[in-house]
Amino acid sequence: MTAAARLTPLAADPDRLFPADPGTRAVARGLFDLVERRPILSVHGHVDPAMLVEDRPFADPATLFVTPDHYVLRLLQATGTPLERLLGAGVPPRAAWTGFCDGWRHFAGTASGYWLAGELYHLFGLEADPSPAHFDELSDQLARPEFRPRALFARFGLEVLATTDDPLDPLSPHRTLAAAGLRVIPTFRPDRYVAASTPGWADAVDRLIGEAGAGHTGYAGYLYALESRRAHFIDHGAVSADHGVATPRTLRLDRADAATLFDELRGGDLSRAADFEAHMLYVMAGLSVRDGLVMTVHPGIYRNHHQPTWAAFGPDTGHDIPVRTDFTAGLQPLLSDFGTAPGFHLVLFTTDETTYSRELAPLAGCYPSVYLGAPWWFLDAPDAIRRFREAVTETAGFAKSSGFVDDTRGFCSIPVRHDTARRVEAGVLARLVVERRLTEERAAEIIVDLIDGAPRRVFKL
Amino acid sequence: MTAAARLTPLAADPDRLFPADPGTRAVARGLFDLVERRPILSVHGHVDPAMLVEDRPFADPATLFVTPDHYVLRLLQATGTPLERLLGAGVPPRAAWTGFCDGWRHFAGTASGYWLAGELYHLFGLEADPSPAHFDELSDQLARPEFRPRALFARFGLEVLATTDDPLDPLSPHRTLAAAGLRVIPTFRPDRYVAASTPGWADAVDRLIGEAGAGHTGYAGYLYALESRRAHFIDHGAVSADHGVATPRTLRLDRADAATLFDELRGGDLSRAADFEAHMLYVMAGLSVRDGLVMTVHPGIYRNHHQPTWAAFGPDTGHDIPVRTDFTAGLQPLLSDFGTAPGFHLVLFTTDETTYSRELAPLAGCYPSVYLGAPWWFLDAPDAIRRFREAVTETAGFAKSSGFVDDTRGFCSIPVRHDTARRVEAGVLARLVVERRLTEERAAEIIVDLIDGAPRRVFKL
Amino acid sequence: MTAAARLTPLAADPDRLFPADPGTRAVARGLFDLVERRPILSVHGHVDPAMLVEDRPFADPATLFVTPDHYVLRLLQATGTPLERLLGAGVPPRAAWTGFCDGWRHFAGTASGYWLAGELYHLFGLEADPSPAHFDELSDQLARPEFRPRALFARFGLEVLATTDDPLDPLSPHRTLAAAGLRVIPTFRPDRYVAASTPGWADAVDRLIGEAGAGHTGYAGYLYALESRRAHFIDHGAVSADHGVATPRTLRLDRADAATLFDELRGGDLSRAADFEAHMLYVMAGLSVRDGLVMTVHPGIYRNHHQPTWAAFGPDTGHDIPVRTDFTAGLQPLLSDFGTAPGFHLVLFTTDETTYSRELAPLAGCYPSVYLGAPWWFLDAPDAIRRFREAVTETAGFAKSSGFVDDTRGFCSIPVRHDTARRVEAGVLARLVVERRLTEERAAEIIVDLIDGAPRRVFKL
Repeated sequence: MTAAARLTPLAADPDRLFPADPGTRAVARGLFDLVERRPILSVHGHVDPAMLVEDRPFADPATLFVTPDHYVLRLLQATGTPLERLLGAGVPPRAAWTGFCDGWRHFAGTASGYWLAGELYHLFGLEADPSPAHFDELSDQLARPEFRPRALFARFGLEVLATTDDPLDPLSPHRTLAAAGLRVIPTFRPDRYVAASTPGWADAVDRLIGEAGAGHTGYAGYLYALESRRAHFIDHGAVSADHGVATPRTLRLDRADAATLFDELRGGDLSRAADFEAHMLYVMAGLSVRDGLVMTVHPGIYRNHHQPTWAAFGPDTGHDIPVRTDFTAGLQPLLSDFGTAPGFHLVLFTTDETTYSRELAPLAGCYPSVYLGAPWWFLDAPDAIRRFREAVTETAGFAKSSGFVDDTRGFCSIPVRHDTARRVEAGVLARLVVERRLTEERAAEIIVDLIDGAPRRVFKL
Repeated sequence: MTAAARLTPLAADPDRLFPADPGTRAVARGLFDLVERRPILSVHGHVDPAMLVEDRPFADPATLFVTPDHYVLRLLQATGTPLERLLGAGVPPRAAWTGFCDGWRHFAGTASGYWLAGELYHLFGLEADPSPAHFDELSDQLARPEFRPRALFARFGLEVLATTDDPLDPLSPHRTLAAAGLRVIPTFRPDRYVAASTPGWADAVDRLIGEAGAGHTGYAGYLYALESRRAHFIDHGAVSADHGVATPRTLRLDRADAATLFDELRGGDLSRAADFEAHMLYVMAGLSVRDGLVMTVHPGIYRNHHQPTWAAFGPDTGHDIPVRTDFTAGLQPLLSDFGTAPGFHLVLFTTDETTYSRELAPLAGCYPSVYLGAPWWFLDAPDAIRRFREAVTETAGFAKSSGFVDDTRGFCSIPVRHDTARRVEAGVLARLVVERRLTEERAAEIIVDLIDGAPRRVFKL
Repeated sequence: MTAAARLTPLAADPDRLFPADPGTRAVARGLFDLVERRPILSVHGHVDPAMLVEDRPFADPATLFVTPDHYVLRLLQATGTPLERLLGAGVPPRAAWTGFCDGWRHFAGTASGYWLAGELYHLFGLEADPSPAHFDELSDQLARPEFRPRALFARFGLEVLATTDDPLDPLSPHRTLAAAGLRVIPTFRPDRYVAASTPGWADAVDRLIGEAGAGHTGYAGYLYALESRRAHFIDHGAVSADHGVATPRTLRLDRADAATLFDELRGGDLSRAADFEAHMLYVMAGLSVRDGLVMTVHPGIYRNHHQPTWAAFGPDTGHDIPVRTDFTAGLQPLLSDFGTAPGFHLVLFTTDETTYSRELAPLAGCYPSVYLGAPWWFLDAPDAIRRFREAVTETAGFAKSSGFVDDTRGFCSIPVRHDTARRVEAGVLARLVVERRLTEERAAEIIVDLIDGAPRRVFKL
């Protein structure tokens, strides 16, 4: 490494994240050049669309980078900064920012640290480690017009941004944004109406049937409401329905049995709640076959692992932990019935790497409907993306990938996350070229397809 | 990479699959040179011996490369070519070949794609991607004497070819081939007579006892028949018995209990079928200890996952999917009783990589009888073989490997599969040399042993 | 590689274990230089403290290297040397050494082989493979004063050496050694008093309550005894309590229920033994919160897998095999109640790599109390350490590592094990530097912290 490189922020290095071997690095650079400037297709994520409707300046760097990001909160807590110092009632943003700066050194080597350094450098020109003194400097920049959400949307090269929404959401922000020419599309996420084993399910179902059941009652009203809300989402540009389930187990029940089970659960007998949830995942696949919404499944997370944090600060504050996941047997009823249905797309995500070569690549390499969701959450990181690609490609090739999915709440992290994925894909392909397993010409086609073609095709954009 | 290399088919590059680092690559090349031309010992596979007995020309490239290969069928189906276009009644081979060519681009980066490119180049001199126009060209070549099965057998450098056979098979093809000087040896595969939970088991058992029970009945006749058929196989050159089980669970039962359970199952009560299967795996180990057949175990596959495909096209058409496998507790009864028995060889295969460092290497690094089966099925691929070797060697060394096992139905893929494994082993050893964990001299001994010594020793050739 | 390097023992190469790429290797060398000479903090292991108290010369190389080391015994047995030839009653050390030398070639590529070669070269100057002729040469060296245990303690640069001890151990060796200025600290290991499902538990508990219950009886006496013995350990310098459990499952019970369960077990009804064990792991965490002992957990080993070996030679002779482990749900009660308790340190070890990215890194990246134990047992090896670091860092960073833990019975292997870990850490960090994910300055801070800071901080030295 040259002396110059040492004096430059890491995020400025044009070769960052490429493999060390010089020959491989040169090939990677050439491949990356083909996709670096492509528009961003953010097909699954958690940005609040109201932010873009209102288009107000972000208040300060803590509100932008720290308090809404569970990746950041968790690592700060883990390294000794109590959440009370960051999220507590009455914590001023400046204090939260200082808390973040105090813990910043612990982000070295993490994906979050890499993203944050990239955001701070590329968005704000920050070359040094973040410090309390930057609070005002960054706040001033955020007040400028070019840092407003819609300006950033354009600057980021966002062509599509998908949000995640409650089935009863009227989706008016999406209408407004569509009228303004921004393609911000909703995603149908029915978890709370399906997860019969979680508190509040019965009330949610009452509300769903009441608002969208068109007078039907019971299981019939429930199914009617789900279908009609899916249609509403499709009318507002939705391309997918997302399912955050405890497990990918599915269960085929006949209609009468399902209706009986539904009544039993609403009557308070939860002993067969897991069966109902497995059945509803199966039902949702059937609905996707009919209405064309891409089905995405995000299983295997133990939510709210630390009860006191949940009680004090609520969900999504950094204490969700993955568990072991088994896809093969669980999905068998669904796939046996719908796996070759024309037009059906089922995108599988996991935080359990053991399923990559054992289950996911074989399933995607067999069923035309099955696509490999990008490395998700804890696995959305340079080495983890590389491991994913190396574990699945020899069985499933490149054609069955969903394209990169950022799945983020951090609006400003979207460009650096996509840039990271593009660089890692270039590195993986470069190695295959250097090992003579792929021509450079074919690798060039593949990287363009992975970054630009696959998300359009798989998510029916 | 030089301009020349770019213009050459990948399969012609003498350095293909070696690591990118130039120093490591040079060591790998030197090691590979020691084994490139060694004869092929194909100790486990699924080639039909009748093909070699009849020695008829292969009809056309579709019949050779596409329709019998579930690796190819699955990926074609997954990327949008329905099996009806490839396997359906009345599909002409030319149409199946065109279907294959249409999907060919999706094989980039896969093990199957690498093998196929190698076969097409090294066997047929095909430098371009396969296209419909090649159907006649390849068919013409196949009609030539040097493309007949026995000519290829010699050209491939096959010293031993093991087939997989039903216990009641008379094994006449093996007798014929032995007389002709070809070492094509049968493998005893008793699954259908052991898998009490699968349809047809009782009928199969009736047939087994009827044909080979020598008048004994019940469990005694069953055991007698199994033993006598093993002896028949040994008389015909068999060196191993293969067990494709759902799980590697084993169970010790005393003879009377086992007989009672056997009768119960034949009476139609299948509630303890899994116990019987676990017991029979234990019994088979005992038989191997006595008669010396190497015991190979291939567990952990969910067979016929897509029921409609199974109904239309039968098994082995690309819809078998791996599941999680646990060896440690499951094999404990078997290993505690037979694990140190003199001459007993137990070769364990898996499609679940999680067991490599956690269970398989510790077991092979403890029990003299246990050998590590080569990376199997979805894991028989360059990166996967490398991961296997890196995961097991630090615990089990190199001496407890079975040698490479191609396990293929694709006769023409045998050379390229073995070549692939040899190259990857050379690359793995080269890294250890460069990291100063092995001398080049020792690495040279090891690669010769892995490729040539281990299969002879472990499979008692 | 130069001709000179080939003629030199591998263990003499200053660049051993560094990555092959020359640029990365140069960075690794620079980082390693910063920690190569740091004192060794051996915070968890199994050296017998009496050895240092008595300070007698080691008798011979077999007694030093072969018979006490289950890593060595297992691989010798696996490759064809029966334990009877090594450990049997009346086997002379010279014969055991010969048995070891005969099997030596099978250690190529293993972690044990790497360590042994390093020990033989760096301690004894042995440049060739060990042979029977070396028995006398090594025995002579061992008789010299500089090879006595305390001399080696100093020569190894050991600053701290932790032993593992029974709760009823009087710890007099530790007192003696402390008086002599050697920091040899005990570790509280209560397994036999907690594992209610193992034979001998009830007798052990009787003895515990009798010796340390201060007259209290039943569950109250049991808890009193455990607490008071922990205090005794703390008085003798202990910093941690170690728990070798079958699984990391924990269970919250109220005091009365626990007492009832305890009485039930002592009455011989073991049906709820697993619940008791899970509860006691929870209780031990509460005790650690109160008395400050660092809690280390080593789960997931199937002990004494081969019953005949156990019957003939006892435990710790090389036939313990890992099993699948699940941390997330199992530890939830413990972590929900104690996970953010001030001063609580919980160090998690595993032999199941699948938990690295899925469970351990997310837990350590969330809970301030949770630290990542170093790669343990079968995973304490160059490639395995690298895989560990790559799997956990992107989620948990570097700050949540315990520092290297050798966990060894082989006193002379301590330096080479720590040297190995330091080299691998340098290589991992160097790659991050070359991929521009870390500055060299930050990498330098991190490696010093990993090697020297973390063990002091995490183990409260």
